[in-house]
Amino acid sequence: MKTIAIVSGGMDSVTMAYWLKELGHELSFLSFSYGQRHVKELEFARQCANRLGATFNLVDLSPLGKLLSGSALTDNAIAVPEGHYEAENMRLTVVPNRNAIMLAVAFGVAVAEQASMVATAVHAGDHHIYPDCRPEFIAAFDAMQRLAVAGFGDVELEAPFVNYTKADVVTLGASLGVPFAETWSCYKGGAEHCGKCGTCVERREAFQLAGMTDPTIYTSR
Amino acid sequence: MKTIAIVSGGMDSVTMAYWLKELGHELSFLSFSYGQRHVKELEFARQCANRLGATFNLVDLSPLGKLLSGSALTDNAIAVPEGHYEAENMRLTVVPNRNAIMLAVAFGVAVAEQASMVATAVHAGDHHIYPDCRPEFIAAFDAMQRLAVAGFGDVELEAPFVNYTKADVVTLGASLGVPFAETWSCYKGGAEHCGKCGTCVERREAFQLAGMTDPTIYTSR
Repeated sequence: MKTIAIVSGGMDSVTMAYWLKELGHELSFLSFSYGQRHVKELEFARQCANRLGATFNLVDLSPLGKLLSGSALTDNAIAVPEGHYEAENMRLTVVPNRNAIMLAVAFGVAVAEQASMVATAVHAGDHHIYPDCRPEFIAAFDAMQRLAVAGFGDVELEAPFVNYTKADVVTLGASLGVPFAETWSCYKGGAEHCGKCGTCVERREAFQLAGMTDPTIYTSR
Repeated sequence: MKTIAIVSGGMDSVTMAYWLKELGHELSFLSFSYGQRHVKELEFARQCANRLGATFNLVDLSPLGKLLSGSALTDNAIAVPEGHYEAENMRLTVVPNRNAIMLAVAFGVAVAEQASMVATAVHAGDHHIYPDCRPEFIAAFDAMQRLAVAGFGDVELEAPFVNYTKADVVTLGASLGVPFAETWSCYKGGAEHCGKCGTCVERREAFQLAGMTDPTIYTSR
């Protein structure tokens, strides 16, 4: 089965790629630049594609950045908030409609490449802040896409981790031999993971909850 | 009400813009370049925005062109088919998932600009070939978007012509004083409308069925 996997280079999407590879999928990675500060994540995605023998396509949506401004992830005038993901200030990290845009592009590519699946690594830890990571969104998107490409392709949307916690992802990844040190999360995109932004806090917590050694180097210990 | 109107520069979307203006909407145009041969349509969109006092934003999705290849509209190796829209060869003019991609971007912009509506000018003449122009697609997309931006925006999808024929659009446009000569349809994007490609055949037929004078200059009479 040919699958278009949306891979950011973070631990969730990289684990998903390893899992799909284990299941025998023929993988085509799709990564997106959209003006994010942590653009270095994409190099981790590319390296993962190389390790897994997947094709790699980078879609440059950065011309959209100006129009979708107002997120700390793309707007240098807004500081990346620190603290836990569930806090209200993490709303600043929302890029409007990001997942719908990326998924719609992925379905276009899937039809063009005659793939059978689009896979995204949204997980339960994202549900509180990001509406476009929730199971009901995934189901509605899949339903919409079946109508959108009816007669031109037969592509299903798969979100294997939609009900996993990030700790569950760590546990699965460890069992698959995912090299977590070769993944990137930090929204600030510095030389090392900052250890303080929402995604760093969540990353560190996930290893703790899973009872796994965290190979990540954090600036703030 | 602030409305993001997807305007290509063709007669349908330009008529929609005039209609929304008549209803008092504050209009923000969103136009897309995606590697289409008939990129000149976008200049007609820009001029329409100027006439109506709308803001105009052009989104360059042409980096996607290579990934979404296989359509005669974007691939110079494939000839634009001639004849009537309902013919099977018009399938060559499908750009995979084009409307879902454009609409998803439009909803992102709508949230960023705090608009209340996204409007698209799909019409009944498109239904046979293009699944992403059908009423059930529009309804499913709207449902998906309400989930995708829940808590961040309240944006509805409007497709006022989804059950109009193109002749109905001509009739409405004429009543609104739409300068049809200042709109562009032809997929070939030459100096004049070719008169033979699917959209030219449909354009000419729409004026005839509406009993209106067609101001378009066609190379093939």
